[in-house]
Amino acid sequence: MRIDNRKYNELRKVKITRNYLLNPLGSVLIEMGNTKVICTATVDDKVPPFLKGTNTGWITAEYSMLPSSTISRKIRESTKGRVEGRTQEIQRLIGRSIRSVVDLTKFGERTIWIDCDVIQADGGTRTASITGSFVAVFDALYALVKKGEIESIPISNYIAAVSVGISEEGPILDLNYIEDSSAHVDMNVVMTEKGDFVEVQGTGEKSTFSRSELDELLELAEEGIFELIEIQKETLGEIGKLIGEKHE
Amino acid sequence: MRIDNRKYNELRKVKITRNYLLNPLGSVLIEMGNTKVICTATVDDKVPPFLKGTNTGWITAEYSMLPSSTISRKIRESTKGRVEGRTQEIQRLIGRSIRSVVDLTKFGERTIWIDCDVIQADGGTRTASITGSFVAVFDALYALVKKGEIESIPISNYIAAVSVGISEEGPILDLNYIEDSSAHVDMNVVMTEKGDFVEVQGTGEKSTFSRSELDELLELAEEGIFELIEIQKETLGEIGKLIGEKHE
Amino acid sequence: MRIDNRKYNELRKVKITRNYLLNPLGSVLIEMGNTKVICTATVDDKVPPFLKGTNTGWITAEYSMLPSSTISRKIRESTKGRVEGRTQEIQRLIGRSIRSVVDLTKFGERTIWIDCDVIQADGGTRTASITGSFVAVFDALYALVKKGEIESIPISNYIAAVSVGISEEGPILDLNYIEDSSAHVDMNVVMTEKGDFVEVQGTGEKSTFSRSELDELLELAEEGIFELIEIQKETLGEIGKLIGEKHE
Amino acid sequence: MRIDNRKYNELRKVKITRNYLLNPLGSVLIEMGNTKVICTATVDDKVPPFLKGTNTGWITAEYSMLPSSTISRKIRESTKGRVEGRTQEIQRLIGRSIRSVVDLTKFGERTIWIDCDVIQADGGTRTASITGSFVAVFDALYALVKKGEIESIPISNYIAAVSVGISEEGPILDLNYIEDSSAHVDMNVVMTEKGDFVEVQGTGEKSTFSRSELDELLELAEEGIFELIEIQKETLGEIGKLIGEKHE
Amino acid sequence: MRIDNRKYNELRKVKITRNYLLNPLGSVLIEMGNTKVICTATVDDKVPPFLKGTNTGWITAEYSMLPSSTISRKIRESTKGRVEGRTQEIQRLIGRSIRSVVDLTKFGERTIWIDCDVIQADGGTRTASITGSFVAVFDALYALVKKGEIESIPISNYIAAVSVGISEEGPILDLNYIEDSSAHVDMNVVMTEKGDFVEVQGTGEKSTFSRSELDELLELAEEGIFELIEIQKETLGEIGKLIGEKHE
Amino acid sequence: MRIDNRKYNELRKVKITRNYLLNPLGSVLIEMGNTKVICTATVDDKVPPFLKGTNTGWITAEYSMLPSSTISRKIRESTKGRVEGRTQEIQRLIGRSIRSVVDLTKFGERTIWIDCDVIQADGGTRTASITGSFVAVFDALYALVKKGEIESIPISNYIAAVSVGISEEGPILDLNYIEDSSAHVDMNVVMTEKGDFVEVQGTGEKSTFSRSELDELLELAEEGIFELIEIQKETLGEIGKLIGEKHE
Repeated sequence: MRIDNRKYNELRKVKITRNYLLNPLGSVLIEMGNTKVICTATVDDKVPPFLKGTNTGWITAEYSMLPSSTISRKIRESTKGRVEGRTQEIQRLIGRSIRSVVDLTKFGERTIWIDCDVIQADGGTRTASITGSFVAVFDALYALVKKGEIESIPISNYIAAVSVGISEEGPILDLNYIEDSSAHVDMNVVMTEKGDFVEVQGTGEKSTFSRSELDELLELAEEGIFELIEIQKETLGEIGKLIGEKHE
Repeated sequence: MRIDNRKYNELRKVKITRNYLLNPLGSVLIEMGNTKVICTATVDDKVPPFLKGTNTGWITAEYSMLPSSTISRKIRESTKGRVEGRTQEIQRLIGRSIRSVVDLTKFGERTIWIDCDVIQADGGTRTASITGSFVAVFDALYALVKKGEIESIPISNYIAAVSVGISEEGPILDLNYIEDSSAHVDMNVVMTEKGDFVEVQGTGEKSTFSRSELDELLELAEEGIFELIEIQKETLGEIGKLIGEKHE
Repeated sequence: MRIDNRKYNELRKVKITRNYLLNPLGSVLIEMGNTKVICTATVDDKVPPFLKGTNTGWITAEYSMLPSSTISRKIRESTKGRVEGRTQEIQRLIGRSIRSVVDLTKFGERTIWIDCDVIQADGGTRTASITGSFVAVFDALYALVKKGEIESIPISNYIAAVSVGISEEGPILDLNYIEDSSAHVDMNVVMTEKGDFVEVQGTGEKSTFSRSELDELLELAEEGIFELIEIQKETLGEIGKLIGEKHE
Repeated sequence: MRIDNRKYNELRKVKITRNYLLNPLGSVLIEMGNTKVICTATVDDKVPPFLKGTNTGWITAEYSMLPSSTISRKIRESTKGRVEGRTQEIQRLIGRSIRSVVDLTKFGERTIWIDCDVIQADGGTRTASITGSFVAVFDALYALVKKGEIESIPISNYIAAVSVGISEEGPILDLNYIEDSSAHVDMNVVMTEKGDFVEVQGTGEKSTFSRSELDELLELAEEGIFELIEIQKETLGEIGKLIGEKHE
Repeated sequence: MRIDNRKYNELRKVKITRNYLLNPLGSVLIEMGNTKVICTATVDDKVPPFLKGTNTGWITAEYSMLPSSTISRKIRESTKGRVEGRTQEIQRLIGRSIRSVVDLTKFGERTIWIDCDVIQADGGTRTASITGSFVAVFDALYALVKKGEIESIPISNYIAAVSVGISEEGPILDLNYIEDSSAHVDMNVVMTEKGDFVEVQGTGEKSTFSRSELDELLELAEEGIFELIEIQKETLGEIGKLIGEKHE
Repeated sequence: MRIDNRKYNELRKVKITRNYLLNPLGSVLIEMGNTKVICTATVDDKVPPFLKGTNTGWITAEYSMLPSSTISRKIRESTKGRVEGRTQEIQRLIGRSIRSVVDLTKFGERTIWIDCDVIQADGGTRTASITGSFVAVFDALYALVKKGEIESIPISNYIAAVSVGISEEGPILDLNYIEDSSAHVDMNVVMTEKGDFVEVQGTGEKSTFSRSELDELLELAEEGIFELIEIQKETLGEIGKLIGEKHE
């Protein structure tokens, strides 16, 4: 039994609220237990210099935590004057993950800015950001379809992400902050609905992990991700079916 | 009649939600129409160097806008590597305002960090930040009282803030973004429940303003602030009466 | 009686020296008692990106204090690597104030850079900067007229600025550093020769102030500003009359 | 057959030169084909604040590429004024990897600084950095043993790292720059001599990868890492056997 | 004949005004023709960490140009967020030069901050800064003597500095901006009243220079420096004789 | 006799290895005793804005020390976020020196980037950088000749650089770190093969130096530089004769 009475393979309560903000084309609040992240997708009619004239778009992500999202107040990166290594690692991961399932050649020379702002942090903020951003980007691309700017939603696959780890009692799914702090091994997995991997990042700072432990973690992650993709589909409803197809 | 059908002296719909986040001692979501700001108060057991050994506390504020809070996406200050002048002006204003009604000698060598994070911006974010922060700081100080760390809430007065301005049709209260963009004169007022001023900042970049216009604006502001203080009091309920008194 | 034997409504000795430097089109040394500020106006044949192609000019200001201008040596902002909040607040104020009386559509796509460098600081540096910059900008625009680049000086009104505050003995005009440090309420006023306001910034960090105190301060400020505008006019002499009119 | 005539499971020529520099306690030049990295370990008698008084040491890593190490000249991060996200990701990875096999409680309150400076880059610089740094840290700790400052080398296990990926022709080991640029999937693996994982980082930006592909990659990596650890052992010679044991 | 009618070995008009500012212990305005620099010396009761506990003082210098001191407006280094290479070179030169004639062990653990702020630039600002700073530091040390904090002025020698260069017409002394821009060779010399060198910096970016040209330049510099030292002595008057001797 | 048994006028063992790296057009490792510097020359088909359209090229230099090149580990400038004054001084010196003998109008609108990265520091890194960069730039220009992009190598003269100083025992040539630390006077000289000066930088922080000492130092430097130029010529071999002539 885990600290919050979950089973080893049980996700926290997940809730995705669409259209959370007025201004961005896509915006969701994703809650996984006490972890709450606002994920938005804004479309800009410019691309970075290396893509100019290639008729290809770009997707990039930024991630930040409110100072009061954590147990001890976190100093703002704007005050420090620099973006931390951890933040950069996370925003690069979110960007790569979403790009892996969007056809960048199908929405013109536009940039989709993903912004993940953590309102409250209780573990798993980077994986929640990916799961939520998928929905926000879906909505933003759907908005472009509705405006007649693109023909169909250029997404090939659902993806979601989850953390898994090895605690004193063995492998567990979707670690909260306390579990994360004491886990020996920590792994983040991003996966498609077909069970293919987008990213696998396992790290054993406190101890190493064997091949069979790795296998157990990957199975646990797959289970959790399939559940999360079901929730994404419910949240999106009918438009969620337009994936990779022509819209009329 | 104004763009959103309000009367010249009518506030937008105001809602203050207390205990919005788990971690900070005080946290509110304040909504004034479509403007939404999370205001939190975190207590740190340290003071800046200039106060060490003086048995005096400090209150300081930081303000930030989510990139997706505005109509066109706003570049993060952490990415720019510096805090903009406008932001610094606002956070200095919030800090000064709240300090004016809290007795810094009555809560020990502690720093209260106020964080105002704008989730959605539709004009009046700095004044909403002050009105909301007052409640968050109240809650944080009350929490110290409950923990037995201080005897009473060292707040002498309610304060709230509002913007007023001169539009084509004359003076108006609580400008939204569109009204703010076209106003000739823009003024922010911070006032106590007794009608005393904490801050008056009026600026006539597009045109100057006469003494009688100034007087009209100040009266409009007073009206709005008294309403806002009523809402603060309702929100705080019973504990809101403990102001400036000993708690048992 | 005040520390320097002035009456409550008495300005310090004011002196404005025009053509203080060789290179800028306009340059003055303004002295208000021991406060000394070099104010210059330089004209650049470019505008910021947001004005390109609009046939409109721009006026922007920068403010800085020499390290040795203050009682304890002030660390250079270049050494710190960032411009302080206070500095940004002041330079935004100077820029807004001067823009309020210059018709930006009447001097082509040019930028007027105002530089206010405080040589010696004894209170009131921001208001002295505004009063002095007005003269420097006047001279720079007059130089453009003389060169035949514009037809007339596109200034609609004289403006000047002064500080007022509430000391132990009551309201006082033009505070020096010692008075400023102990004042309960501090207000900076920028006003035209017609008595219209450009900016009113009153702050009561140490205590709040009532409506009647506000009124007294505004009257004191008006008195001081009218005197300062007289001095500006004397300094400019004949060309000072060319304001808002065609030059031949 | 690969572009440089290697078999799919063949490492490039590996050479580790110890004592490459005079000043640091440990320093190696590691060459993997044309990739050349100077890895050094310097010991400092201080720890970061969070470890003061805990009798625990720390290991941290920095990574940089010479501007002329790459095909097009790379702008210095010192000139840019900030450390890139990719660099931070790599230096965090190196630090975590080495810490996983060193007992931080066994060398006092010291910090071991690892510096990895890429002289020439042809793919696999981060994994070469880990493999080389292990030897440099080994030498630095051995130097402390020889000086009598610690009793034995507090390393529990050999580790090395290698990159694997999926090219058009299938899985390959130890990718050079050209292979890396065209691979669909890219994975970095850090592993001990016992075959346990320290880090697994697989990313499929250009396409996703299946579970069976993941398995193939992990086996290829294991093969390469075991070869690298043999080379580390040959390089270290007799002292390489003192691992995890008391030295006399 | 030179552009301003000087002879090849003629200094511009030199004027040194002492006690130019109220706050610093030593402050002068030095004018060499149109070049005007405020040089101040402020004494701080702290030393940099590397001198703590050594009973030795330190002297350091900072140099800056007002934006409007030059023909085209110079962007502030605070705005750029970094101090330029040229500035750093100059402030290191000023610091080294003054330190060479002050006994750092004779004024306790204090730091003398030299600030050289160029009000108007017409060539030779770095050498004027050195010549002026010498007087400012003299005054600051004399002030410490008067306060009874040190026994005598710990200065061993007068120093001054001047620029020399090779123009189309041959070697010239004390170049103004136009001469400096077209000179083939540019040299700055810092020298004591005994004719010993403190610094020699000659650079031939546009062409190289022979040994005999070097010799001519050094003689010209010596002549100029002896004249400057005479002016320093006149400026200081009686107290200028207290050099290197006990004061009563 | 010196600490390393050299005579007062004896260089350390000098070795220049050409083609040290694969990617840059020119690259050498220069070793002067234990001082080792990688000097590279990279050619970029762009020039800085001030040269656009002038058919003139540019040469600029950057200098850096590996953290582990020095006795105590040197903090990276990328980590500090700024380039130190000393570094800027050195890179400006290298750039000026090389530019003095290359005809910038003879290799088109290209920039030659010189990168000097100190692998190991034992005094004289700036002069070794100049001597080595000369060869790297020679090779880069020769590569342009071979590619048919320019007709001949636009270098007018060999240059090399060396340090000289005054120790307790008198003037010495080519100071190592220990000698440099204790020298009273330190001078860097850059000279052509004809004995003309490019740069002379002498500094007497610990004591001043007389004219006759200066003369001795210059002669010592000349001797050393002539030897270094011989070594450059041997290193370059046949192509070293193509200087300033047409290549067929």
